[in-house]
Amino acid sequence: MTTESPETDSGFHVFDTTLRDGAQREGINLTVADKLAIARYLDDFGVGFIEGGWPGANPRDTEFFARAQQEIDFRHAQLVAFGSTRRAGGSAAEDPQVAALVASGAPVVTLVAKSHDRHVELALRTTLEENLEMVRDTVSHLREQGRRVFVDCEHFFDGYRANPEYAKAVVRTATDAGAEVVILCDTNGGMLPAQIQAVVSTVLADTGARLGIHAQDDTGCAVANTLAAVDAGATHVQCTANGYGERVGNANLFPVVAALELKYDKRVLPAGALAEMTRISHAIAEIVNLAPSTHQPYVGVSAFAHKGGLHASAIKVDPDLYQHIDPARVGNSMRMLVSDMAGRASIELKGKELGIDLGDDRDLVGRVVARVKERELRGYTYEAADASFELMLREEVEGRARGYFRTESWRAIVEDRPDGSHANEATVKLWAKGERIVATAEGNGPVNALDKAMRVGLERIYPQLAKLELVDYKVRILEGRHGTESTTRVLVTTSDGTGEWSTVGVAENVIAASWQALEDAYTYGLLRAGVEPAV
Amino acid sequence: MTTESPETDSGFHVFDTTLRDGAQREGINLTVADKLAIARYLDDFGVGFIEGGWPGANPRDTEFFARAQQEIDFRHAQLVAFGSTRRAGGSAAEDPQVAALVASGAPVVTLVAKSHDRHVELALRTTLEENLEMVRDTVSHLREQGRRVFVDCEHFFDGYRANPEYAKAVVRTATDAGAEVVILCDTNGGMLPAQIQAVVSTVLADTGARLGIHAQDDTGCAVANTLAAVDAGATHVQCTANGYGERVGNANLFPVVAALELKYDKRVLPAGALAEMTRISHAIAEIVNLAPSTHQPYVGVSAFAHKGGLHASAIKVDPDLYQHIDPARVGNSMRMLVSDMAGRASIELKGKELGIDLGDDRDLVGRVVARVKERELRGYTYEAADASFELMLREEVEGRARGYFRTESWRAIVEDRPDGSHANEATVKLWAKGERIVATAEGNGPVNALDKAMRVGLERIYPQLAKLELVDYKVRILEGRHGTESTTRVLVTTSDGTGEWSTVGVAENVIAASWQALEDAYTYGLLRAGVEPAV
Repeated sequence: MTTESPETDSGFHVFDTTLRDGAQREGINLTVADKLAIARYLDDFGVGFIEGGWPGANPRDTEFFARAQQEIDFRHAQLVAFGSTRRAGGSAAEDPQVAALVASGAPVVTLVAKSHDRHVELALRTTLEENLEMVRDTVSHLREQGRRVFVDCEHFFDGYRANPEYAKAVVRTATDAGAEVVILCDTNGGMLPAQIQAVVSTVLADTGARLGIHAQDDTGCAVANTLAAVDAGATHVQCTANGYGERVGNANLFPVVAALELKYDKRVLPAGALAEMTRISHAIAEIVNLAPSTHQPYVGVSAFAHKGGLHASAIKVDPDLYQHIDPARVGNSMRMLVSDMAGRASIELKGKELGIDLGDDRDLVGRVVARVKERELRGYTYEAADASFELMLREEVEGRARGYFRTESWRAIVEDRPDGSHANEATVKLWAKGERIVATAEGNGPVNALDKAMRVGLERIYPQLAKLELVDYKVRILEGRHGTESTTRVLVTTSDGTGEWSTVGVAENVIAASWQALEDAYTYGLLRAGVEPAV
Repeated sequence: MTTESPETDSGFHVFDTTLRDGAQREGINLTVADKLAIARYLDDFGVGFIEGGWPGANPRDTEFFARAQQEIDFRHAQLVAFGSTRRAGGSAAEDPQVAALVASGAPVVTLVAKSHDRHVELALRTTLEENLEMVRDTVSHLREQGRRVFVDCEHFFDGYRANPEYAKAVVRTATDAGAEVVILCDTNGGMLPAQIQAVVSTVLADTGARLGIHAQDDTGCAVANTLAAVDAGATHVQCTANGYGERVGNANLFPVVAALELKYDKRVLPAGALAEMTRISHAIAEIVNLAPSTHQPYVGVSAFAHKGGLHASAIKVDPDLYQHIDPARVGNSMRMLVSDMAGRASIELKGKELGIDLGDDRDLVGRVVARVKERELRGYTYEAADASFELMLREEVEGRARGYFRTESWRAIVEDRPDGSHANEATVKLWAKGERIVATAEGNGPVNALDKAMRVGLERIYPQLAKLELVDYKVRILEGRHGTESTTRVLVTTSDGTGEWSTVGVAENVIAASWQALEDAYTYGLLRAGVEPAV
C-alpha cells in the first residue's frame, strides 16, 4: 500500500489523529468524503501514520477504512485503526470489537488501554489484574494477525501520580506482548511540560519501552508538552491538524513538526513538505468548515504580520530582526500592516508589497503617513482594508482619485409593517461615463438594498461588476460610550471568484459607512479587472 | 492611587500588557474608551500592573493616561507607562520621549532596551557602550523622578545566543541603575521552554537581578515558556488578556495565572478573582470586538465540553475522570454536548441570581432552557444581555409579556444628499395605555432617529424614560460568509444614572435588530423604575 517506509530517516514517528481524536472537536462533523480528502492532504504532507477512526464503532468509520484503502494511493503514511482492548472476562480472538479492527484491513492498530487504577475500577469495573490480561491478550492477538500494534495508555500521567507501579506495569505488559510503541496520554490535558518530562524520563528508564506522547491542550501547553516528552526520549508524537480535538483540542501537528524540523534539526517529514504546511493547514480548515485560525503559529495569516512602527523600521534594515524563521520555510509570508502605530518605514514596505514604488519620494511618503494618521484618528483602519489603502496610495501617487463612477445621492428606507414584515428599499443616483443613472432596488436590509441598487445602475456600463460578490461584512461602533450617536466603521470583503479584497468606510451612521466601503469595493474590483477609469 | 499593594502575598508580579502589546494584534484598534473599560476589568481581575501604552507616541495613549488616573479608582493595579531608553548621544533629562513618560503621571515605567548586540548596531545605529549608557542614564533619571522602573530587554534570548556577556551586561547595568525588575523578552517568539529555562537560570545566577519574562507565541509555547522562566526563578510575568498581541500573540494571561494558582499553588491574584476569569476573558473580547475563542484553555465555551461517548459515560460515574480541574474554579462550567443537564442548572442559578425562584418547577425551567436554545440558535446571546434574559424569564414565570407599549410599525429613512450631508428621519407608531402614538424625529443615523422618535412618543406617558441614556451599542454580523445578507445581532447598553443594563436584538438587518434591542432596553428601564405595566 505504501511505496516508502512510513518512518523518516531517523525512525521518528509523526502520528496524526485528526480523523479520530480531532473529529471530537465541538463543531466538527466529518463525512466519509471529508475524511478521505483530509487523509490525502496528510499523506501529501508526509506524516507517517494516519489514524482514521474506530472501525466497527460506527458505519462511517468502517466505510472510511474500506474506501481509503481502495481510493488512496498512500505515498508516505500507513493507515491506523483505533480501538479498545477486549472486554473484561472475554477473549480477544472472540471479541467482535477487536474483530472489526482486523477486518478494517489497516496495517496498524492503536489500542486504547486503561493505565489509571481508579479508571479500571470505576469506569471499566474490572480488576487491575484483568485489565493487564486484556492488554496482553489483545496485543498478542493482533500481532498474530500480522498487525503492527501501538498502545495508547489513557490517563497515563494522572494514573502515574496515583499508582506509578501499576501505570508502568501496563507499559511493560503491552511491550512484552509485542506492542511497538506505548503512548503515554495526558487525556485530561492538565499536565505541564516539567511534569511530562520527569514522568517520561522515569518510565523510559524503568521499562525500556519505546514511548510516544499524546497531549491535550487544556493548560495551553500541548505543543510544549509534546516537545518535553521528546526531550525526555519519546520517539513518537500524536497530533492533530490545527490542534482540533475534544475540549480545548490536541497538540497541534504544525507547530510540533515545525519545532522538530526547524528548532531540533530533526528530519521528521519528507524533503520539501514543511514548505507546504501553510497551504495544507488552510485546506484542512476549509474541509472541516472552520475558518483557518488567523493567529495560529507558523501558518496563520497574521503569523508574520508586523504592525508596530518600531518593528517596521527595524525590518527595513533586516527582516530577521523581527521574525524567528524565514516564513517561506513553512510556506507563509511576511506582511506589513498599516496602522497609526506605523511610520514611514511600514508605508514604504507596504508600497513595495503592492508593487507601487515610493522609493525616493520622501514628501509623498510623508503625505501618505499623515493621511493614514489623520484618517485612523477619525476611525478608519487600513490594516484590515488593504484595498482601500491601495486606492488611497494610488490617489496620492497618481495625483487624482480613481473614478469609475460618482455618487450624486442615495436614499435607503427601512420599514417595519404592522404585520411584522420588513420592507427595505434603496434608490441611488450616480454618474458614470457622462451618464446620469437612477436605480432602485429592494433587499433584505438597507445595505443589501443599496448594494443591489448600485449594481442595477452600474452593471450595464461595467459588466465586470456582475461577478463581484460581497463575502463578508463587519460593523464596529467606535467611541462606544455615546450610544447611538457614535461613529461607525464598516469593513466589507468582496470576491471576484479569483481573489478577495477588503474595504473600509467610516461615518456617523452605519448606512453611510457601508456606502463608502461599497464604493471602494466596486472601484477596486474594476481596477483589478483592468478597466480604464472614466467618470 | 491604589488602596492595596499591587503585589500579592508572595510578592510575585502579574503584569498585563493587553493595552500596549496586546493592541498590536492585527484587527484590534482600541479607542480611549475601550482602553479604560479594559483597564477596569483587569483591575477587577487583580493583576498587579497594567501597562497602558506609550504616552507621547500618539495622542490616544496620552489621553488614556490622563483619563485613567482621573476616572478609575484602581483597587489592585498600578498603572505603567511604556517607553524607550533615551536617544543615543543625548541625555535622559532632556529627552522629550522620556519627559512624556514622566508627564504621564504613571507611578511605574517600563523601558524597552536593546540587549542584542546586532540590534544595537543595525537598528539603533549606535555603539554597545552608548547603549549601556542609555540604559543607565534613563533608569537613573526616572528613579530620580520617583518612578518604579522595569526594563524590558528586547530580543534578550536571541541576543544571549549571539553575545551572552553583552546581554548580561545590559541586565546588570539596568539593575545597578535602580531598575526593580529586568524582563527577558523573547521578542521574536522563537524559543522553546527548555531554552528559556536554561538561559533564565544562568542569567539569574550570574547577575542576581530580579528577572521577569515576556514571551511571544510564535512557536505555540508562550504559556509554557512563561512557566519555564518561573521554574527557573523569574518572579514577574508579562501577559495579555486572551493572548492578544503582534503576529501570533503574547503569553495568554488566563492560562498563565490559572497554572500558577491551580498547578503551582502560588497566590498571584486576590482571593476569588480566578472564579471571575471566564467572565472577564469574554468581556474583554467583546470590548476589542473579537469573538471570544471558543477553544481557549480554561475559559473557552468548549474548554469543558464533552462529546465522546466514552467520556460521557465515564463522566456520569465521576466528572473528575475527564476534566483536569473543576471548571467552577475558573468561572466556567462543564457542558455535555448531547444533554440539557448543564443548561437547566445554569438557568436555575441565573434565576436565583435575579431573585426569581424557579426552585421546584421543572417544567418551567425546561421551557426556559428550550427557549434559550432556540433563540441562541437564531443568533441571540444572553451572556451579554442580562436584561433581555430577565424579561424573557419573567414572561415565562408570569405567563405574559411585560408590556408598557406595543409597536404597530416604524420606518427609518437615510438619505445622502448631493452636498454630502445626510438626513436621517424615523417615524414610529406605538400603542401605550390605550392610546395610539405617532411620532417622528431626526437623528444622526437611522437608529438614533428611531431612538429619538420612540422617546418623543412615549415620554409624555412615561416621564421616567427621560433619564435613560444609551451608553453603548455593538453590532455583530453572524454567519459572515453571506455578505450583506447575513443575520445581524445588536447589543445595546442603557443607563438610568444609577445602573446599566444590556439588551439584545437579532434580525436580518441592523435597523430591525436595533429596534428590538431598544424595545427591551426601554421596557427594562420602566421595570427597574417600578412602573406598572399597562399596554
